[in-house]
Amino acid sequence: MPVLVMKFGGTSVATLDRIRRAAKRVGVEVAKGYDVIVIVSAMSGETNKLVGFVNETSPLYDAREYDAIVSSGENVTAGLMALTLQEMDVPARSWQGWQVPVRTTDAHSAARIEEIPTDNITAKFGEGMKVAVVAGFQGISPQGRITTLGRGGSDTTAVAFAAAFGAERCDIYTDVDGVYTTDPRVEAKARKLDKISFEEMLELASLGAKVLQTRSVELAMRYKVKLRVLSSFEEQSDSAGTLVCDEEEIMESNVVAGVAFSRDEAKLTLMSVADRPGIAATIFTALSEAGVNVDMIVQNISEEGRTDMTWSCPVDQVIRAEKAMQKAHEDGVINYQELVADKGVAKVSVVGIGMRSHTGVAAKMFKVLSDEGINIKVITTSEIKISVLIDRKYMELAVQALHDAFELDKAA
Amino acid sequence: MPVLVMKFGGTSVATLDRIRRAAKRVGVEVAKGYDVIVIVSAMSGETNKLVGFVNETSPLYDAREYDAIVSSGENVTAGLMALTLQEMDVPARSWQGWQVPVRTTDAHSAARIEEIPTDNITAKFGEGMKVAVVAGFQGISPQGRITTLGRGGSDTTAVAFAAAFGAERCDIYTDVDGVYTTDPRVEAKARKLDKISFEEMLELASLGAKVLQTRSVELAMRYKVKLRVLSSFEEQSDSAGTLVCDEEEIMESNVVAGVAFSRDEAKLTLMSVADRPGIAATIFTALSEAGVNVDMIVQNISEEGRTDMTWSCPVDQVIRAEKAMQKAHEDGVINYQELVADKGVAKVSVVGIGMRSHTGVAAKMFKVLSDEGINIKVITTSEIKISVLIDRKYMELAVQALHDAFELDKAA
Repeated sequence: MPVLVMKFGGTSVATLDRIRRAAKRVGVEVAKGYDVIVIVSAMSGETNKLVGFVNETSPLYDAREYDAIVSSGENVTAGLMALTLQEMDVPARSWQGWQVPVRTTDAHSAARIEEIPTDNITAKFGEGMKVAVVAGFQGISPQGRITTLGRGGSDTTAVAFAAAFGAERCDIYTDVDGVYTTDPRVEAKARKLDKISFEEMLELASLGAKVLQTRSVELAMRYKVKLRVLSSFEEQSDSAGTLVCDEEEIMESNVVAGVAFSRDEAKLTLMSVADRPGIAATIFTALSEAGVNVDMIVQNISEEGRTDMTWSCPVDQVIRAEKAMQKAHEDGVINYQELVADKGVAKVSVVGIGMRSHTGVAAKMFKVLSDEGINIKVITTSEIKISVLIDRKYMELAVQALHDAFELDKAA
Repeated sequence: MPVLVMKFGGTSVATLDRIRRAAKRVGVEVAKGYDVIVIVSAMSGETNKLVGFVNETSPLYDAREYDAIVSSGENVTAGLMALTLQEMDVPARSWQGWQVPVRTTDAHSAARIEEIPTDNITAKFGEGMKVAVVAGFQGISPQGRITTLGRGGSDTTAVAFAAAFGAERCDIYTDVDGVYTTDPRVEAKARKLDKISFEEMLELASLGAKVLQTRSVELAMRYKVKLRVLSSFEEQSDSAGTLVCDEEEIMESNVVAGVAFSRDEAKLTLMSVADRPGIAATIFTALSEAGVNVDMIVQNISEEGRTDMTWSCPVDQVIRAEKAMQKAHEDGVINYQELVADKGVAKVSVVGIGMRSHTGVAAKMFKVLSDEGINIKVITTSEIKISVLIDRKYMELAVQALHDAFELDKAA
């Protein structure tokens, strides 16, 4: 039998009624002849409640205990989903991560899946079971302790199972009906994409579109797992949602696939740093050790042996960055005049694999922003995306202007 | 190091504050030099919430999924208790049932513990860990699925660990401060017992005193585990609570240790049954198969080949009993005139190992009740207890009168 993986996020299993609705969708696929692996998240709110307990108990918690505690929400949903399917006369049973077992690294709270043995579940399919319900987000370390994969990790669980079982497709049921050219709350003309390439989805995911966890897209790309994002709140046809797939499977596409944005960014500039070999390594090692996620980096031209170093990071990490630089200054490791923090910036990006073959996308982007009187503070580019930092107050305007200019409301 | 087992019930871990208070008690025992095994229940209300989910999803649920779901509450408490101890600088970690592993039968929702390997936890004690926090109520079946031990099963988990590790004592922390001569809500002069024998505790537990799960007392008696029941809401000394122990360790005791009662009983009489060999077996097999828990049984003297058969059972099982008898009548298996159900009775019992050597306890009990004008409907006795069925409206009066007459408010 072909295998299908279906993943239901927290809002899709938030109540017993919603679990019933999700189970009906599973029943439809079973009726088509699939052996189905269902990956479930915790009922929405449960994980936050448990995380709250942990933080209140122990601010600097033992991550092994954190994982043992917060993984319990998924176990409850898995059992309830199996019972619901049984009530519909669909042979089903639940598996917790350690029962499969989903073998992971021992990097607690951010573990990576290393192996998913398929024999146990495959044998049950052979005995007539139609649905294996697996608790997402969790696994077991080489030491036999429970691990979790980080927030949103159930997407990664789903893709990893699809890869391990050679599934025909991995359907991610969520509270939106697909991947859009941009966030419809910012641009009403945003259009749902029927298909998008792994590369584009990866850029959009890491640039702030919250539909899929970045790691799940990476994994899908590596193992060529067809991913479909669709809504659990609508009746669905086979062509519903957005298919994330190899670019070869996309016949026609716009040069630009979408506009992504990230609202809460900060721009920091270390003024007049002594410009010597290794200074960048020193600065960014110190920031990394302080837990600052540096995104864009710009170095100005050196004058008289001194330079300015600029980077961006999430706005809530500014204090951490400031402390790290002060300490490096006091320790005599980095000599600088001043650290200037601009906490009022946002990042806007255009993404599209078409950029590889079309020139002029960057020039067009800069002209559109300029025409709107928006000043660009930092620019970075990759093969298939261009990102700029701008004043936060212009973010919506920039997204709308770019969406219009690249005609994203029209299909290719 | 000597090992101590400490068990905290649902009300003792109902909030993070209460978990902290319980952890402080654990810290006190660690400071005395014990290696401590802590058994925890789910935060009170959690298990009921999960059971509600299961019943709403699937009235005739798969007990394997029920167990996987309802066991999650204990896992949360175990992790939180370990974190709380770590915050107090007490080296601790949590274990879920399958991690120990607590091996049980596969009788899901009513599994029995078969084996608890000690090597894993003992090795950690050897490495400097001071507290092993174990999720109570759960285990793992030979098939590798999660099992639970039935409601109140954490008491049994605690005693089983105490037996496996040869613990010096098993302390059961609960919301009462010990075992009383009777329920203080019924008789204000009820007195807390310092010590009680296993046999007496077993009778009291199975007669309706809800302090300890019956099976945990059986297990403690078989393995000679010293059990102590005490309150988690009071500062405790070494002699606090009630010690449940071998009768040899109790120097002096009253003839009667306590008065137990069970409010919601029913008395059923099958009138004019054909009295032939095997008729009792036929009746009580039919009742057992219908899930009726028959307690007392009385058969009247036979007259002209017919007799009356009387038994008691919980009042909420009367309908089941009636249906079973009707069916047997229709099937021609049991021939009777009428089934009379008296749903307004209660059971009152006096318990004490002193009865073995003292005669006259039964006579005294009957006289006390008679003096109060209370009619006795059914009597049963064992070596260390006498139980009577009486009208429910006299229950409190009977308990108070017996408590007075046997001078249970005075220590031996």
